[in-house]
Amino acid sequence: MKPFLDENFLLQNKTAQTLYHEFAKSMPIIDYHNHLPPDQIANDASFANLTQVWLYGDHYKWRAMRTNGINEKYCTGDAADFEKFQQWAATVPYTLRNPLYHWTHLELQRYFNIDTILNADTAKEIYDKATALLQTKEYSVWGLLGKMNVKTLCTTDDPTDNLEHHKKIAAGNCPIKVLPAYRPDKAMNVDDPAVFNAYVAKVEAAADVNVVSYGDYLIALKKRHDFFVEMGASVSDHGLEQVYAEDYTDAEIDLIFDKIRKGSKLSLEENHKIKSAMLVEFAKWDHSRGWVQQYHLGALRNNNARMLGKLGPDTGWDSIGDFSQARALSKFLNKLDSTDQLAKTILYNLNPADNELMATMIGNFNDGSSVGKVQFGSGWWFLDQKDGMIKQMNALSNMGLLSKFVGMLTDSRSFLSFPRHEYFRRLLCNMFGEEIENGELPNDIAWTGKVIQDICYNNAKQYFGF
Amino acid sequence: MKPFLDENFLLQNKTAQTLYHEFAKSMPIIDYHNHLPPDQIANDASFANLTQVWLYGDHYKWRAMRTNGINEKYCTGDAADFEKFQQWAATVPYTLRNPLYHWTHLELQRYFNIDTILNADTAKEIYDKATALLQTKEYSVWGLLGKMNVKTLCTTDDPTDNLEHHKKIAAGNCPIKVLPAYRPDKAMNVDDPAVFNAYVAKVEAAADVNVVSYGDYLIALKKRHDFFVEMGASVSDHGLEQVYAEDYTDAEIDLIFDKIRKGSKLSLEENHKIKSAMLVEFAKWDHSRGWVQQYHLGALRNNNARMLGKLGPDTGWDSIGDFSQARALSKFLNKLDSTDQLAKTILYNLNPADNELMATMIGNFNDGSSVGKVQFGSGWWFLDQKDGMIKQMNALSNMGLLSKFVGMLTDSRSFLSFPRHEYFRRLLCNMFGEEIENGELPNDIAWTGKVIQDICYNNAKQYFGF
Amino acid sequence: MKPFLDENFLLQNKTAQTLYHEFAKSMPIIDYHNHLPPDQIANDASFANLTQVWLYGDHYKWRAMRTNGINEKYCTGDAADFEKFQQWAATVPYTLRNPLYHWTHLELQRYFNIDTILNADTAKEIYDKATALLQTKEYSVWGLLGKMNVKTLCTTDDPTDNLEHHKKIAAGNCPIKVLPAYRPDKAMNVDDPAVFNAYVAKVEAAADVNVVSYGDYLIALKKRHDFFVEMGASVSDHGLEQVYAEDYTDAEIDLIFDKIRKGSKLSLEENHKIKSAMLVEFAKWDHSRGWVQQYHLGALRNNNARMLGKLGPDTGWDSIGDFSQARALSKFLNKLDSTDQLAKTILYNLNPADNELMATMIGNFNDGSSVGKVQFGSGWWFLDQKDGMIKQMNALSNMGLLSKFVGMLTDSRSFLSFPRHEYFRRLLCNMFGEEIENGELPNDIAWTGKVIQDICYNNAKQYFGF
Repeated sequence: MKPFLDENFLLQNKTAQTLYHEFAKSMPIIDYHNHLPPDQIANDASFANLTQVWLYGDHYKWRAMRTNGINEKYCTGDAADFEKFQQWAATVPYTLRNPLYHWTHLELQRYFNIDTILNADTAKEIYDKATALLQTKEYSVWGLLGKMNVKTLCTTDDPTDNLEHHKKIAAGNCPIKVLPAYRPDKAMNVDDPAVFNAYVAKVEAAADVNVVSYGDYLIALKKRHDFFVEMGASVSDHGLEQVYAEDYTDAEIDLIFDKIRKGSKLSLEENHKIKSAMLVEFAKWDHSRGWVQQYHLGALRNNNARMLGKLGPDTGWDSIGDFSQARALSKFLNKLDSTDQLAKTILYNLNPADNELMATMIGNFNDGSSVGKVQFGSGWWFLDQKDGMIKQMNALSNMGLLSKFVGMLTDSRSFLSFPRHEYFRRLLCNMFGEEIENGELPNDIAWTGKVIQDICYNNAKQYFGF
Repeated sequence: MKPFLDENFLLQNKTAQTLYHEFAKSMPIIDYHNHLPPDQIANDASFANLTQVWLYGDHYKWRAMRTNGINEKYCTGDAADFEKFQQWAATVPYTLRNPLYHWTHLELQRYFNIDTILNADTAKEIYDKATALLQTKEYSVWGLLGKMNVKTLCTTDDPTDNLEHHKKIAAGNCPIKVLPAYRPDKAMNVDDPAVFNAYVAKVEAAADVNVVSYGDYLIALKKRHDFFVEMGASVSDHGLEQVYAEDYTDAEIDLIFDKIRKGSKLSLEENHKIKSAMLVEFAKWDHSRGWVQQYHLGALRNNNARMLGKLGPDTGWDSIGDFSQARALSKFLNKLDSTDQLAKTILYNLNPADNELMATMIGNFNDGSSVGKVQFGSGWWFLDQKDGMIKQMNALSNMGLLSKFVGMLTDSRSFLSFPRHEYFRRLLCNMFGEEIENGELPNDIAWTGKVIQDICYNNAKQYFGF
Repeated sequence: MKPFLDENFLLQNKTAQTLYHEFAKSMPIIDYHNHLPPDQIANDASFANLTQVWLYGDHYKWRAMRTNGINEKYCTGDAADFEKFQQWAATVPYTLRNPLYHWTHLELQRYFNIDTILNADTAKEIYDKATALLQTKEYSVWGLLGKMNVKTLCTTDDPTDNLEHHKKIAAGNCPIKVLPAYRPDKAMNVDDPAVFNAYVAKVEAAADVNVVSYGDYLIALKKRHDFFVEMGASVSDHGLEQVYAEDYTDAEIDLIFDKIRKGSKLSLEENHKIKSAMLVEFAKWDHSRGWVQQYHLGALRNNNARMLGKLGPDTGWDSIGDFSQARALSKFLNKLDSTDQLAKTILYNLNPADNELMATMIGNFNDGSSVGKVQFGSGWWFLDQKDGMIKQMNALSNMGLLSKFVGMLTDSRSFLSFPRHEYFRRLLCNMFGEEIENGELPNDIAWTGKVIQDICYNNAKQYFGF
């Protein structure tokens, strides 16, 4: 009987343990994509209590609580912070086998040195202990990141963002390198003319460009891209159901843009054409700057209109879609590749049924021009757990080179989710350890350890060039 | 070397064995969805021989026999009962690794205390022994159900059914609670005008309503729904390739209904619109009554027209489809949720590639209003086996709360398939046992045992409120 | 710690070892589908060095090298043979967990008795040793095939092929039975009128038929089919994204054929109609001759237009698609079955998300008329590896009869890839061994061993009737 969550957690054999403790454990972290709030980093914020740092904004926890029959008051509502914690604590024992059970106790251990299992009875003791620690300097944002050996991180930012917090971070003495990333999702969102035109107004203001034509719009957005370059960005990101790769002419796009600017709703065909056009432009900018472009594909968002209306997006009403991915992805990447304008690219996939599709798609555009140029990104969102990570790594192993993988990222809104890198590393070491002990790989610890260190840190360092 | 099918079958470690024997094993069974024949229950029928109780109607066995090159005569044909059994017995050794191999020997053990491996040589001995037992009172329908500790079961019934057998059961002293379930598949089947209109005539007769308009049709079906309520039903069920969730107006549906009533074939669009409309109405009735609604999604039925013509439906010519599921399901559930008319809902999925989609879809509508309100149903039909059950439980664990799962059901036409509950429980206990022994879960047997008992019985009891 | 690649490679328990060494190992090989070059077999070719026999034409290795940042010069380019080998050798250590790592070392062991791990340092030694052996008679094509105990193999040939090499093989004393297979992919390729019409000209010449109408075209192709029969063929093969099963009339097809013959591009509907029509005709010929027809479904080919333009097809720019498969496959097979013209059929699937769909689809048309009539083919291309093979065998086991499976094939262009049969057999034995030791199957070694021998050889022998 192995104790729960001891130092050899998830490491089911001696070789895995050696690989983790001697090679993986001490590698620093590059968290190249997340949703951390730049203001809290800029201000090296502190947190009043455990609920605020741990539960606020955490839709994973809310979904579990709601399934457990907990009233919304204790999730996003106006209950007191400790009341919310108490309800969460009472839910934890029902999360057995859900990744929340592992994250919860791993985070309590790593950040707060708390080994106690969280439940209704231990809630008060844990809340008090963690909350007390959160009052100390060591538990400010920088302290929390430092504890996890984070060297570099990339936030996710709108093109219209003035990046004031990033300026402050850069000007200050934050021990972690913090970079913005360009995420033009709203710039592409032509589903609702009013929403789109309001956004164009923001772009005009941010770029100081009068947007009359589609050409102007691109000029304005490109100015913002240039500004992100100035601010140290070298990564873009896109959240899409699927890549759009319709055929279009420039003349068509000009007309479509004029149409929506006049407030008319676009047809589905027009909608997809202009999205297709923008994706190509954005990708060319990324290529011209030597950036890495990321595509998060496959989420079906905002399914529950009633709750969305009450609480807004990102409150736990999203799920996994079954969109067709292969043809459009191929066409899009090929279009860019044909003129040699395909930037380094990471494809993230939310439906594990598409893992093998993605793991082979990247090979179509890995042409030897740079190491691991097109990447299959790590298990994302709902797949950011043991089963999801293992499946992604197995598909990548079987159909590509795991050894060239840029590895883990948190994609998180929380300063407490960095132990997911540790979790990933343990799974990675366990995979290799198991196969070495089974005679499926040679017992070459030095080489395997080097490959593991590459996946944990070195590959990302080289790939992103931070 | 562990013996085949001993008391620790499928329980690969001590903890799993403890969890099963001390917690799961003795829990009663609520079989909340199956296709058992109500007349045989009402009459506490006995079976003339092992073939009649075990092979008649069992398309799983027929498919295996046909693949093994056995002539149809021995499956659905006119061979003598023992000849059929002999051919089945000769096929069994070729079913190694197929769930039939496990079901077969588990059922022989549990019902007949027969440990002998079934094959051509042992066929006679086993047939004779089991057939002799079937002559005894203990092996009537009630006896067979009682042996398995079945407390409650729900059959599957057409809205036009007069439920006479259920009346008889309710009036008699059947030791098991037997309830009907409302399955309006035929009511929605507008693919063939002649078939549909013949069905409408049956509805008219059953409801004593003259159906002129679509409104009348709903009134008539609703009367049947009310009648099912009177008869104790609190569960509906639908077998669909995919949920239909087209936009429609009431005026459109009225016209579509008139069109088909005049004998005209509907266009695909009309077909989907009226199905969409009916699904919503049925769902609202379920909500208004506090019922649980079930959707069995993803089967591609009746693929072999030649054999279907000879033998009729449900004789083994169905398979797994690759229908698009996410968008329509989201739209349908959202429509109901938007007016707060979403009943408790169970989604069953036949294509395991959609497991993660389903496991996250339910979370979109679990709003805290009741515990585990929207459920991802257990592995169904072709997935009702070790691999299928494990994948379903893993997806549910990773993306929802396994602890709130209403668990197993047989979905079966056979009185001998109840050991599948045991099979499910063993797999469930093995999962938890393995993770406890691996240090992935705390060694808290009492709590884990309670969670297991909930999944085996208590959750269903609370959820269905039988 | 089990040594890497010892005699019990992949056999993780005693029972598996017994099953492999006493039953599977010594069975001969029927490689019923591959892409070996008939001229090299006819001439019993020898190879100048290890690069020529091992790297030439191997797009799996090229993809790995390109991902590793190796310049195209060393893949398909004009670098010297040893330079290419050196670059491949330097890439091998980065292929840990990719099937290439296993194939590479298994092939070095089995053909060349080389146990050394291949890397940049050992490249020269290995290259020299293997190249020296390749100079000996024992390492000619026949020698290489003989070493692997290959009894029969089927190449893949165009209908216009004059099969001169097959004639030469048949007339000579090649110790292996080598048969052609009819692959009319180009005959169906109506995507580009010019390409199609050029192909029709080749058919006219090969069949000595003047093709004016669609009817003539069928006559000409049927003559080639008859010629393949004369040459001993009894297998056809098709490589398709998905099966085409549109409705059509003969008159429509005549017009569509005339249209493309006049050089006009077909609409998508016309394209699919004529492909649907041809598939049915070809299938009827196969049935009338008692052939086995094979369908390789699901590849998304030629994704990278730039590299395809430079290097041509089959150079590593293909991937896994997410095409809809179920409905059309059902309709196509049903159409043939309805007139009792469905030949023995093998369905190969490239997207593992469709495994269960395929494993149940075959059951729809297994009607008992012959043993295992419709087969779910072994893991193909990207799935021709441990994980892919296991998933295919598990799906088949759970939903059909693994015991009736015709087993492994190389589908390869290389004379060095036959150890994949051994690999498959080891995985197969390990599956059974594990379940016997776990108590999930009876400890009946004789019977299990017989079933394994069937899957390795006897089933294919009976099924193909070579």
